[in-house]
Amino acid sequence: MPSYKAPLRDMHFLLNEVLDYPGHYQKLANGADATPDMVEAILEGAAQICEEVIAPLDQSGDEEGCHFEKGEVRTPKGFKEAYRQFVDGGWQGLSFPQEYGGQGLPMSVSLLKTEMVGTACWAFSMYPGLSLGCINTLLEYGSEQQKNHYLPHLVSGEWSGTMCLTEAQCGTDLSQVKTKAEPQSDGTYKITGTKIFISAGEHDLTDNIVHIVLARLPDAPKGTRGISLFLVPKVLLDDDGQLAERNSVNCGSIEHKMGIRASATAVLNFDEATGYLIAEPNQGLTAMFTFMNTARIGTAIQGVSHAERAYQGALPYAYERRSMRALSGTKEPEHDADAIIYHSNVRRMLLTQKAIAEGGRAMIYGASMLADFVFNATLTGDEEGAKKYDDKLGFYTPILKGFLTELGIEAASHGMQVFGGHGYIKEHGMEQIARDARIATMYEGTTGVQALDLLGRKVLMQTKGKAVRDYSKDLFAFTKRNFFADSTVGSIARTLGRRASQWNWLTTRIMLRAKDEPEAAGSASYDFLMYSGYLIMAYYWALQAETAAEKLKNGDGKESDEFYRGKLQTAEFYYERLLPRADAHKRCALAPTSSVQQMENETFALR
Amino acid sequence: MPSYKAPLRDMHFLLNEVLDYPGHYQKLANGADATPDMVEAILEGAAQICEEVIAPLDQSGDEEGCHFEKGEVRTPKGFKEAYRQFVDGGWQGLSFPQEYGGQGLPMSVSLLKTEMVGTACWAFSMYPGLSLGCINTLLEYGSEQQKNHYLPHLVSGEWSGTMCLTEAQCGTDLSQVKTKAEPQSDGTYKITGTKIFISAGEHDLTDNIVHIVLARLPDAPKGTRGISLFLVPKVLLDDDGQLAERNSVNCGSIEHKMGIRASATAVLNFDEATGYLIAEPNQGLTAMFTFMNTARIGTAIQGVSHAERAYQGALPYAYERRSMRALSGTKEPEHDADAIIYHSNVRRMLLTQKAIAEGGRAMIYGASMLADFVFNATLTGDEEGAKKYDDKLGFYTPILKGFLTELGIEAASHGMQVFGGHGYIKEHGMEQIARDARIATMYEGTTGVQALDLLGRKVLMQTKGKAVRDYSKDLFAFTKRNFFADSTVGSIARTLGRRASQWNWLTTRIMLRAKDEPEAAGSASYDFLMYSGYLIMAYYWALQAETAAEKLKNGDGKESDEFYRGKLQTAEFYYERLLPRADAHKRCALAPTSSVQQMENETFALR
Repeated sequence: MPSYKAPLRDMHFLLNEVLDYPGHYQKLANGADATPDMVEAILEGAAQICEEVIAPLDQSGDEEGCHFEKGEVRTPKGFKEAYRQFVDGGWQGLSFPQEYGGQGLPMSVSLLKTEMVGTACWAFSMYPGLSLGCINTLLEYGSEQQKNHYLPHLVSGEWSGTMCLTEAQCGTDLSQVKTKAEPQSDGTYKITGTKIFISAGEHDLTDNIVHIVLARLPDAPKGTRGISLFLVPKVLLDDDGQLAERNSVNCGSIEHKMGIRASATAVLNFDEATGYLIAEPNQGLTAMFTFMNTARIGTAIQGVSHAERAYQGALPYAYERRSMRALSGTKEPEHDADAIIYHSNVRRMLLTQKAIAEGGRAMIYGASMLADFVFNATLTGDEEGAKKYDDKLGFYTPILKGFLTELGIEAASHGMQVFGGHGYIKEHGMEQIARDARIATMYEGTTGVQALDLLGRKVLMQTKGKAVRDYSKDLFAFTKRNFFADSTVGSIARTLGRRASQWNWLTTRIMLRAKDEPEAAGSASYDFLMYSGYLIMAYYWALQAETAAEKLKNGDGKESDEFYRGKLQTAEFYYERLLPRADAHKRCALAPTSSVQQMENETFALR
Repeated sequence: MPSYKAPLRDMHFLLNEVLDYPGHYQKLANGADATPDMVEAILEGAAQICEEVIAPLDQSGDEEGCHFEKGEVRTPKGFKEAYRQFVDGGWQGLSFPQEYGGQGLPMSVSLLKTEMVGTACWAFSMYPGLSLGCINTLLEYGSEQQKNHYLPHLVSGEWSGTMCLTEAQCGTDLSQVKTKAEPQSDGTYKITGTKIFISAGEHDLTDNIVHIVLARLPDAPKGTRGISLFLVPKVLLDDDGQLAERNSVNCGSIEHKMGIRASATAVLNFDEATGYLIAEPNQGLTAMFTFMNTARIGTAIQGVSHAERAYQGALPYAYERRSMRALSGTKEPEHDADAIIYHSNVRRMLLTQKAIAEGGRAMIYGASMLADFVFNATLTGDEEGAKKYDDKLGFYTPILKGFLTELGIEAASHGMQVFGGHGYIKEHGMEQIARDARIATMYEGTTGVQALDLLGRKVLMQTKGKAVRDYSKDLFAFTKRNFFADSTVGSIARTLGRRASQWNWLTTRIMLRAKDEPEAAGSASYDFLMYSGYLIMAYYWALQAETAAEKLKNGDGKESDEFYRGKLQTAEFYYERLLPRADAHKRCALAPTSSVQQMENETFALR
């Protein structure tokens, strides 16, 4: 497995030069502490623990996997110590309120760290990562006592949390949840049922695990409107909030998975476990959806993480491995063959990885700013602003999650491919990256689910296309201000404008069809999502190119200029070699609904 | 792991109704025995051993993997017995000469079996599969004594064979081969060196393993013109051809791989092992290339196999798993939710798998007919014909291998995706299919190597575009005869004609650019290969649609009609939802060479 080096220079470029995070933080009620110095210290500190402590566990963790015995899970060697350092460093609480021991920084600061931890070792990152949803749920819906008892331990990372949604018969369709909650005379509930696929559902990193569980009250209506939310700790607390007896929730087994093998995916049996209602009865799903957007950013980061990791793995190999001569003539006469980085097809794969990792990172940073704005508006009681930003984020996150995880898998696959047959061998670690990356399009809502949420709900149902029109404004503004710019940036601006018009036209076409054909949205959804993703990534590459061109105008040092030139060249690559895929998605999105709907179910099996 | 069912109906459709194999066999000097009855018996027999004996080993073989101890390899439980049945059934010798114990049938008959064995368990299929290259080499270049001593055992499958090309420092670039061959006074050679990635290089299925080894004679010129071919048996033979003492070739270890874990990939140490020169000195690579085309068809089959296997796995799940209601309204009111096969996005994935598996199969069958013609022309001394067909096949096989293995990986990935999170769990077997499929674009020449061979060598260098013009004739002929046909077939014919023109135009554009820019071919090669693949698959779907429409005209039975209707609908799906990807490949193939070439090597690392 290649070592991990945090791409700090790229991060600085995006944060300080392209997106003006320092200015952004000044606008936030909770942004005062996020000074450039503070953010820099956090980046460097996170880079250090990720590079030195967490990344070295990635390959050994995969090899060893988690151990399950008699209801207990042992994480791979080194995980406990690394997690201890993570907790001691205060990394879990960066963006949580100071009253519960956090540092109260804007959400985006925490997401910067999430990317680094996830790239160093995605399986490790799942343990603290799953706590976030639990903490957010308690912050929003917990009682005062619950907050005071649980949050300090969760925010410190001393305890961890989970989200227990999935059951054997349902994942996406939570209306089918069967787990029962029976009210007790003391105001608590007895929770009974089996949850599967619970990430970090059982492990040896913390003394307690706080489960947030979806279950049904006895009189609950059928379907999604009959689901409530419960807090079910692994170890119950006494009245003072101290750990008391073990609750009757037990780990039945852990899954054997293709990848992220160091992350324990538990089957949890709740056997009249004591639970506490949070939020209103039957409002569980609505409450869950409150955090959907930030949770999706978290998963979208996996696309960037695995693209980054695979690029960092493939690049040194491309420098070192020698095979054949370059088509344009001998490059390294002192060797029997030229390094494969000279070959166009290898460069194509490396540039694809680079464009995905850096373009995806920019997209994440853009979304994180929106998440900051949402929280800020809530904090300052600006309801209108909160809704405005949340709507924009709600439109953006299914694209982010769906598109970036698909591209993360592609980038990971290129990492193997650059290695040729050696990419298939475990010791080089490239195949692990591909295995680890593969889950990302399936959990936390498959790509298909994201696509339907985007096109069916956010675009057609909720906004009748306005979401696309609104988002396009940023793109058209870019086109306008750079239409006549020199060479690369001008050309990019004109392409971006054309594509943005096409996006709106495409949306209208689908909308018109959807009036008569109920399956039109389903048929077009995947391709519409991918089209949108390619376009938004194009926008973030445009922004990077714009900044780089500006910096080059005042170029002062050779190496620094070379970095900016690399940005411009990667942007060009993106526009010339990746963005054209939007053409295919456009045509597929416009294909007749019959293309997927006309075949009889039975006919699929006639062969 | 889902069970395997040979898709005999689809095979019959292609062989008897679309491609007229019965008529084809009548044209071949060695085709007389390949009567419809005989072919049918072979298909049914192969289906039986594949479904009942080989397929059940697929998952257990992956789980157990191969065992390595003290130079010996033990294959997983059940492999030995299954291989014995394979040998006893005479499956290895179908298409080898009767004088060595084979059945002397055309090559294509053997390839029909190869697909079934490979789909049942690709890892298993590698053991008999690797023998084929060895047998072909001996048939063409072996001395009379070598043929008599080795071939009967190899053709029966009693012994197996390997191809030992790759070394640690080189795979693609065999000019770097270092293994030495020192001539001895008795006419033999002492072979010394280490070969890696030797599939079936060591195992417990046979009493002997016959290695074909690339090595250098002491006075050999540098590079590819200094490589010779040697026969190096694991166990030496005495003068009567009986097994005698062990040769000094030893297995140093086996690789731990992402997939095909039941296939032993050996490091072989040759330590002054006794070898016998085959073919002329320094002509080793030329000799190897003789079988390149048929070897590539064999690997291309992997794309079809894994698409087929993943489709067979995903379809039952799509029938059974229920989630949400269909957008167009409740389909299964008796259940809490509708089967996921009703959802457009699931149908899109299933149809993609079906289109790839059946379209790829048709492409393979088309190539197999060419392979038959090549052999037939050689057999009848028709040198001109042999060259004509071999050239056509040489143009076709890099497309077949590159394109079908890329699409096989995609289809396997859809298989997981249909399962959602369950696709990631080992017990369902879907992730294994994806892991097994992943090697296919890397071994036997990566996709990049196939792409350069296609565009750089076959199209630009050797034929100046004529290969594309020649191949297009079949496509234009289809367009001509169906231009005014009803609905689906007519529409397909017109699209195919437009695309074929575009293919020629694209070729010309690249050719013109390649005159001035040596890297132009490299830059465009991958996308040109993919474009060509989508187009040729479109042709084979056109042929299937043409036949299906014809059959439906005289429709006689409901179920049979439904099969043909399914073919037409899948063809429509292909033209509406997969072929449009060619647009993106066209634009990328035409992107400036600078898009991949302009970045300085060092700039890739600036981040």
